[in-house]
Amino acid sequence: MNQQAQQKQQNKKPRTAITPTRDEDFPEWYQQVIKAADMAENSPVRGCMIIKPYGFALWENIQRSFDDIIKDLGVQNAYFPLLIPMSFMSKEAEHVDGFATECAVVTHHRLEKGEEGGLVPAESAKLGEPYIIRPTSETIIGDSMSRWIQSYRDLPMKLNQWCNVMRWEMRTRLFLRTSEFLWQEGHNAFENGEESREDALKMVHAYADFAEEYLALPVIRGEKTEDERFPGAIATYSMEAMMQDGKALQAGTSHDMGDNFARSFGIMFQGRDEKEAHAHTTSWGISTRLIGGMIMTHADDDGMIMPPRVAPIQVQIIPITKGDNAEALIEYCNELKAALKKIGVRANVDDSDGRTPDKMWGAVKKGIPLRVEIGGREMEAGQLTHVRRDVGKDSKATVSQDEFLSSVQSVLDDIQSSLLEKARAFMNENMTEVSSLEDIRNHYKNDKGGFVKVDVSVWSDPKFEKVKDEFKLTPRVMPFDDNGDKVIIGKAY
Amino acid sequence: MNQQAQQKQQNKKPRTAITPTRDEDFPEWYQQVIKAADMAENSPVRGCMIIKPYGFALWENIQRSFDDIIKDLGVQNAYFPLLIPMSFMSKEAEHVDGFATECAVVTHHRLEKGEEGGLVPAESAKLGEPYIIRPTSETIIGDSMSRWIQSYRDLPMKLNQWCNVMRWEMRTRLFLRTSEFLWQEGHNAFENGEESREDALKMVHAYADFAEEYLALPVIRGEKTEDERFPGAIATYSMEAMMQDGKALQAGTSHDMGDNFARSFGIMFQGRDEKEAHAHTTSWGISTRLIGGMIMTHADDDGMIMPPRVAPIQVQIIPITKGDNAEALIEYCNELKAALKKIGVRANVDDSDGRTPDKMWGAVKKGIPLRVEIGGREMEAGQLTHVRRDVGKDSKATVSQDEFLSSVQSVLDDIQSSLLEKARAFMNENMTEVSSLEDIRNHYKNDKGGFVKVDVSVWSDPKFEKVKDEFKLTPRVMPFDDNGDKVIIGKAY
Repeated sequence: MNQQAQQKQQNKKPRTAITPTRDEDFPEWYQQVIKAADMAENSPVRGCMIIKPYGFALWENIQRSFDDIIKDLGVQNAYFPLLIPMSFMSKEAEHVDGFATECAVVTHHRLEKGEEGGLVPAESAKLGEPYIIRPTSETIIGDSMSRWIQSYRDLPMKLNQWCNVMRWEMRTRLFLRTSEFLWQEGHNAFENGEESREDALKMVHAYADFAEEYLALPVIRGEKTEDERFPGAIATYSMEAMMQDGKALQAGTSHDMGDNFARSFGIMFQGRDEKEAHAHTTSWGISTRLIGGMIMTHADDDGMIMPPRVAPIQVQIIPITKGDNAEALIEYCNELKAALKKIGVRANVDDSDGRTPDKMWGAVKKGIPLRVEIGGREMEAGQLTHVRRDVGKDSKATVSQDEFLSSVQSVLDDIQSSLLEKARAFMNENMTEVSSLEDIRNHYKNDKGGFVKVDVSVWSDPKFEKVKDEFKLTPRVMPFDDNGDKVIIGKAY
Repeated sequence: MNQQAQQKQQNKKPRTAITPTRDEDFPEWYQQVIKAADMAENSPVRGCMIIKPYGFALWENIQRSFDDIIKDLGVQNAYFPLLIPMSFMSKEAEHVDGFATECAVVTHHRLEKGEEGGLVPAESAKLGEPYIIRPTSETIIGDSMSRWIQSYRDLPMKLNQWCNVMRWEMRTRLFLRTSEFLWQEGHNAFENGEESREDALKMVHAYADFAEEYLALPVIRGEKTEDERFPGAIATYSMEAMMQDGKALQAGTSHDMGDNFARSFGIMFQGRDEKEAHAHTTSWGISTRLIGGMIMTHADDDGMIMPPRVAPIQVQIIPITKGDNAEALIEYCNELKAALKKIGVRANVDDSDGRTPDKMWGAVKKGIPLRVEIGGREMEAGQLTHVRRDVGKDSKATVSQDEFLSSVQSVLDDIQSSLLEKARAFMNENMTEVSSLEDIRNHYKNDKGGFVKVDVSVWSDPKFEKVKDEFKLTPRVMPFDDNGDKVIIGKAY
């Protein structure tokens, strides 16, 4: 092929900022989006990630927004130890089976110089009882509740902690599945099973509302099937999201423990009838995994797209300097940034050394919702040009600064709702209601992805096992909307 | 002794909410203050504490306030792994000596059922290279910086993380010294040693300003003597506070590493002169220890006293219900709470079941800066009675609600500055300038506590060793105010 022909060939395919594209290799595209946005990277510690400043700023916004929501629900933050005595794990039979198989075990409390000069764990500092690094804190919080709860007057008790947890994972992927991750874990205790059930339901709705309103993630709310329950729970509720490759992501769960943990840890109280009774508890968590879900829902072949409500930077201002106007232009941009801050908009001026096209692509790859470009002529005219990340160049418009300031919030709101609508439309398009095992087989055999919805009775048919194994299907959730009669099935992260 | 005489005896000593008093047993008083305020307690995990909601709310306020300050200084938050490869610890020779002797070592990644039925670390899941739980993160952040920093354009790089760290402590005390604690650790990198020195100085002043303005903790700012430096630093700057028993508390430190860590971890960059050079780094941290310092500085024999700027609750409103007015009164109190929230004051209504005197003492022991009492008659007259926690009943005043709302912020400000002034006066009273070893001996022999200040030459005299051992004295800091010519000496936490 000669050069011209090669060029033509290349022109056929529009150039994208991310290689490969979603169609070419979805998992690799995902890694490249994170890299191009500078959000996180793998660390020298097996299976653990480093969350870089831009990724962490997103987590901070998620954290602060949701923290306000749970505080309004009467939840109090606290902090419990990182280490869990090994014996605690054995107290709840199902819990130990669920978590003991994949945890970091602390066995010594000192290093010393070994024979070969390097460091080794000191034999003289071997612990009598090993500790494990918390994979979740039901056990140690249950132990505390058994001391703190005496009377019905102490109930409800609603505790939460934002912390790191660790589960030894063999196959890891940034944000989605890492050995260490950040999360919040809420643990509430109540007088009876009706209240704990109500609370577990309330929290899954709190998560789903938050995911939709802040992260622009449409989700299906419902209950997990029995075999997918949290170890030790009597019911697990979940919100499930659909990624752009049609796979499911469990984005947050809320568990009704009944009195299982209260019995294992002795959480007793004197009731209104003066009789001793076991409390009923719930636990509920969301994690940095949500960030993975946001990427796989919103990002495109040019990189990340941040929903404005939680975007670290909502408006990126790029001064298009030419020759000697740089200083004045940057000052003008900084004034705009200050004016935006005053009206509650998070803006940033890219005054780095780079070339203008690189700065524009930088803003695109980071998924900053709105990009503003100001050149010398625009400065003189009191104007600016802005472009929406989600729409691209078709949304390019030049307006006066005043006009921009008075409309920017509604533009951001529109981006926020567009992202949600687009993702919801995608989910609806890729949801197929079927009525038989054969339908499911045909659906996945023909390589149609997404979710299928069937009667629970079809799913519980023993014949389903074969189909399930063949296509790696799992039951995601039994939607509340179908009164638990149906189950959503799909491949999952 | 008959009953009357007994009563008389008891009346001699004013009753205090905390037993013992500071004079009777300072360390035990400290524990009891924490217990009475419900801030924290020991956990079933050796040396680790549970931070209860009221204590954690204080930490959250400290964290959010200081986080805003460092963000204004251009620092970005990020998150690095909890585990550190053992080999990393060996890279900086002094650092390993400083930290390897007291750390939690992770050696296995799975538990299994043992022969006796309990859980044991699975031999098949023994790690090739053990990890330690971070005692501090210079090593793993240094390793990242070596990849992230390429050119002088990448500098300065200013990173911070809010996280948990672990140092195996033998003798622990709530907040002051626990095996696990919460902190922020900042790690900055610069082009040269002048900049890193300047930054380390800037951060110790940021700490000291924060301690004085937010926590009402007066501190002495200065440099640590050589033998008290952070392992691997070329200079350690510190702020030292004086507790009410005259002992010193190191309340925050900032380290200039020079290029030590950059050399150990290969943090190199291409300079403005196009030559490769090592970066110069700093690190700086404050922790939950600050809460211990606040308690030992402000609390009295009736319990905690919270500085208003970081107090979880600034105003406690107590409805004095009698008979059938309870509902209306509580509603009236809630309206006052809402009016206070509007003007940025954190208020709480104690509508619990308890007796009024218990509620009043509860507010005292929790150290809530301002207590408001409202009875039925006051409600009808649109009035309320308020009492300052730091002054006590002499400050009791009945005013109209409008007057209260318009003056409450200035009352809180006055409490804040009074606490600082009182603590500063105490520190000045208990600071003695001396000129010889003999003076120091006499000072501590006569059981005068507090700090002494001497010429550095006296301290560095080898003869000082004996006096030091006799009275357990340590050099706290060489104050900036004395240009490093003098050193402050005292007993320390």
